[in-house]
Amino acid sequence: MDAFHKTISNVSVDCVIFGFDFEKLNVVLVEREFDDPVTGVILLKDFTLAGYHIFEDEDLDNAAYRILKDRTGLENIYLEQFATFGKVQRVAKAKDQLWLKLIDQGFADRVLTVGYFALINSTNVNLCSEKYKIQWVPVEEANGMELAFDHNEILQKALDTLRDKVRTEPIAFELLPELFTLTQLQKLYEAITGNPIDKRNFRKKKLQMPFIVPMKEKQEGVSHRPARLFHFNREIFDNTRNERFGNLF
Amino acid sequence: MDAFHKTISNVSVDCVIFGFDFEKLNVVLVEREFDDPVTGVILLKDFTLAGYHIFEDEDLDNAAYRILKDRTGLENIYLEQFATFGKVQRVAKAKDQLWLKLIDQGFADRVLTVGYFALINSTNVNLCSEKYKIQWVPVEEANGMELAFDHNEILQKALDTLRDKVRTEPIAFELLPELFTLTQLQKLYEAITGNPIDKRNFRKKKLQMPFIVPMKEKQEGVSHRPARLFHFNREIFDNTRNERFGNLF
Repeated sequence: MDAFHKTISNVSVDCVIFGFDFEKLNVVLVEREFDDPVTGVILLKDFTLAGYHIFEDEDLDNAAYRILKDRTGLENIYLEQFATFGKVQRVAKAKDQLWLKLIDQGFADRVLTVGYFALINSTNVNLCSEKYKIQWVPVEEANGMELAFDHNEILQKALDTLRDKVRTEPIAFELLPELFTLTQLQKLYEAITGNPIDKRNFRKKKLQMPFIVPMKEKQEGVSHRPARLFHFNREIFDNTRNERFGNLF
Repeated sequence: MDAFHKTISNVSVDCVIFGFDFEKLNVVLVEREFDDPVTGVILLKDFTLAGYHIFEDEDLDNAAYRILKDRTGLENIYLEQFATFGKVQRVAKAKDQLWLKLIDQGFADRVLTVGYFALINSTNVNLCSEKYKIQWVPVEEANGMELAFDHNEILQKALDTLRDKVRTEPIAFELLPELFTLTQLQKLYEAITGNPIDKRNFRKKKLQMPFIVPMKEKQEGVSHRPARLFHFNREIFDNTRNERFGNLF
């Protein structure tokens, strides 16, 4: 699959690429299909996260950026390592062993994988990959599918990490465009937490946060009354961090 | 070093074992020494974190528990995976390459390591290891030493993770005994953050936290006036979590 680089056969990287479309949280899945070369019968067809083995001459973080770009064309987006998965049996399912035999790239029977998650607003982005069939799938739907290897577990852990982390770090804003409405922000939090949020309370709280800054601009090209646009100011967030955390412990 | 298990040659686990002694934060370091078998001259002597390669037939988490127990005798203590380190050059320093040659256990030139941190109160614990020379070293002192491989970076990342995490998760209490005084709690926070804390403010805040529960018991066997003992109540903490987090975002 890559003629120019030797891979480390028992270590891979898997990227959980989350995208928000103003309604729901989606994840990039890569189709895995293998047809019988003689009869054309589909021997295997399912989905995986965006992953591959790391190259021998490549730092771990660089492998994650490479795989992200290679699978989706995306670069310069938020990417963070969140956990490493190393159960003995994680690639031992029959269909996964079949796949490893079929592609015949010399990967080991025992593979550990390092999970990264990426965040992006998917409304103005085109995924593009020369070699792979990829698509955005709603996270809820992906959770209901039987993904390759232990990728359901990896997706769940990424989601748990995201849910935890949005409480204390401003990473949710990576899933929005530069300028956003409070309704979009509310839908994002609802999509991440899976719970409905009371609109009046939410708006009241957000408007009190000094780092969520109202702009002069309003929405354009919408059929309803255009809403005010807001901007996340990281400097104000950082400067007021200790105040906000001071009361916790 | 282990005749009964095959190891995965390019994946290891390193445990950053933090211990609090009521004054400062310490870390377990393992002495690495190799003497010339003929002349007795010390060829190499420095310190590493508690680490080893994972076995082929062993889940990743189990490898961490095994290494913790094997190096220190400790078990059933708080242990958490925090990051994986995979720079190409992480074992390439001359002294580390020398070491790998000297011990001759067939490890690869390129090794990725999964970092775990452990937390314990060290005042009532005896470290014990049959095969290794181990000791508690103040974290501040360890930071000033040139540890093996990239272990300075791993230690720093573990410390950063601990500092971040004590703000939102009750893991600091893992570094204290069941019953503790507010002065001990304050010293712990000072040790973790590296900053002095105003005593009056600290006590006032802690006394308002419903999950820090005053007990009937007081300290025994101290020369000063015995202080009230407190207990961390996890149930109350979990039940009041949303309240406390509600205001953040």
